[in-house]
Amino acid sequence: MRTLEWDPDRQQIQMIDQRLLPGRFEIVRYQTFQEVADAIQTMVVRGAPAIGVSAAFGLVLAALQSQARSLDGLKKDLSAAAQVLRAARPTAVNLGWALDRMLTSLDQAAPGSVDAAREFLLGQAQAMADEDVAINQKMARNGAELIQDGDTVIHHCNTGSLATVDWGTALGVIRMAHETGKRVHVLVDETRPRLQGARLTAWELEQLGIPYEIITDNAAGFYLRTRRAQKVLFGADRVAANGDVANKIGSYMLALAAFDNDIPVYSVFPSSTVDLSIPNGEAIPIEERDASEVLNIQIDGQAVAPAGAKACNPAFDVTPHRILTGLVTEKGVIYPPFPLNLPRVIRG
Amino acid sequence: MRTLEWDPDRQQIQMIDQRLLPGRFEIVRYQTFQEVADAIQTMVVRGAPAIGVSAAFGLVLAALQSQARSLDGLKKDLSAAAQVLRAARPTAVNLGWALDRMLTSLDQAAPGSVDAAREFLLGQAQAMADEDVAINQKMARNGAELIQDGDTVIHHCNTGSLATVDWGTALGVIRMAHETGKRVHVLVDETRPRLQGARLTAWELEQLGIPYEIITDNAAGFYLRTRRAQKVLFGADRVAANGDVANKIGSYMLALAAFDNDIPVYSVFPSSTVDLSIPNGEAIPIEERDASEVLNIQIDGQAVAPAGAKACNPAFDVTPHRILTGLVTEKGVIYPPFPLNLPRVIRG
Repeated sequence: MRTLEWDPDRQQIQMIDQRLLPGRFEIVRYQTFQEVADAIQTMVVRGAPAIGVSAAFGLVLAALQSQARSLDGLKKDLSAAAQVLRAARPTAVNLGWALDRMLTSLDQAAPGSVDAAREFLLGQAQAMADEDVAINQKMARNGAELIQDGDTVIHHCNTGSLATVDWGTALGVIRMAHETGKRVHVLVDETRPRLQGARLTAWELEQLGIPYEIITDNAAGFYLRTRRAQKVLFGADRVAANGDVANKIGSYMLALAAFDNDIPVYSVFPSSTVDLSIPNGEAIPIEERDASEVLNIQIDGQAVAPAGAKACNPAFDVTPHRILTGLVTEKGVIYPPFPLNLPRVIRG
Repeated sequence: MRTLEWDPDRQQIQMIDQRLLPGRFEIVRYQTFQEVADAIQTMVVRGAPAIGVSAAFGLVLAALQSQARSLDGLKKDLSAAAQVLRAARPTAVNLGWALDRMLTSLDQAAPGSVDAAREFLLGQAQAMADEDVAINQKMARNGAELIQDGDTVIHHCNTGSLATVDWGTALGVIRMAHETGKRVHVLVDETRPRLQGARLTAWELEQLGIPYEIITDNAAGFYLRTRRAQKVLFGADRVAANGDVANKIGSYMLALAAFDNDIPVYSVFPSSTVDLSIPNGEAIPIEERDASEVLNIQIDGQAVAPAGAKACNPAFDVTPHRILTGLVTEKGVIYPPFPLNLPRVIRG
């Protein structure tokens, strides 16, 4: 199944519970937008494209929940629901992008009744889900051109099917390279604190039959400096107008290590991840998540930090565009100077 | 107690079992050099200075174990024991340094009997243990000059009392700054895979009353780029003649992030960590440890990687001298050009 799917019979959104993988594969179902907001916040679903489409379906649920008899009343309820969904996570811009697109297209469609509006919103969310898959595959084809037969690629976090509706962004590039016959080997950054690499990316690569090894995030520099990796790929949660990329914490140091060794490093994302309203990475809000994600790690069943230890847990960092080799989008691969080329390609 | 101590009554070496901290504080006792080699390999004791002195006491045990009746026979047994101890871990040069020093000084002392040799070796190991503490405190005073009142310092791995006989190297600098009245705040890199930061450094800082927060290794770049940290400190396992520093995996990317933001980054180590026979970091052997250290991590009691997942686990990396601000030793702080200044200070 896709990472998230609409169940037309139950009028529910169903999702893979990504907190339980790879140990358990479980499907959760939601019928309220509040549950969807909570699922985004607690990372049942994660990955910028996936949370965008989840939020779109959250609005569909809000429309079904609404008791409004008029279109104006419905829009008021949708606006309140959008506010709750938007607040679920601050960094990925796809969340706000998807909500804005749902609400704007509803205004433009001007349906004749509350029920017609509900129908329209469902169709719109379905279209966004299908579009996400098509965009990912286009992006993957663009990115796969950059992969050489025999490459070892370092990959951060999870950017595969699970981070999107299906197929993936950076991992989608690797998958496309693999499926078009290139031999590609992946070094999977485990990606502390939530271990999306060790848990989710390794799980996806197992299923795809792509060879990989898990490494600690600390080890990436070693493989780059000893030239045992030839490419670095990661996704993006928000890209500023100048090409600065906010992505999973650790991306910045990984990109620095690639840059320091003249090894190409690419960020892969759909154009919906670009926020042209933000001039540079400094202006991107960085989510601080709960310290328990850092502290509640166990080795041999024993808690690792002393009782009472404090922790800080920023979830993202910003990679300045000056150390990136290229930006892979469905509209093509963008090269420096990014402040010039990124807005041109995105607007074009 | 010290990290390792000789028990004169039982003729045993006793150590804090660092694998169990911070959950349990347990002392283990060894009476054979084979046990000591195993303790070094399995990281009951770790930290370059601590394993050096542990190996010295390992030779004392080997002398007690020896059935030799002649000095030549004893030396043969000691040489075999040194080989076993030396092979326990390949990267930290202090291990070989301590063994060579024990054997060379025995040759020079030329004791008149096997028993006199045993006595001499015990005295020599005790002296090395005491000397380690004195050197650390000297280094700490040199390094504390570099810390400003109010600094937030990012620290990698554990370099405190537990990594030495007592006091510490990089953490010793922080402790000295704190004890001489400077306000210092520590961001503790958790240091995957074995979490020496979250487990050991946090435990030491709790006991010293120095304020700290644990961060994932991934997060260091964020704190440096946003200028919420003013210094980076770590230890060293082996330093080449040109100043390249082999240290715990992840040090290289951490130093890069400091360098990229013009934030001072220092490696702190005793002169016994310098290996002038090695021209640069490329020639330093890097230990590859078992994949289980990466894979056997649990969150909420659930194994994180898919069954059958593979992992790679290099334990150290090399930080090139060009991105280091200074090298702190008991002989003073050494500044660039390191290829010129390091050998001069170490030889002098």
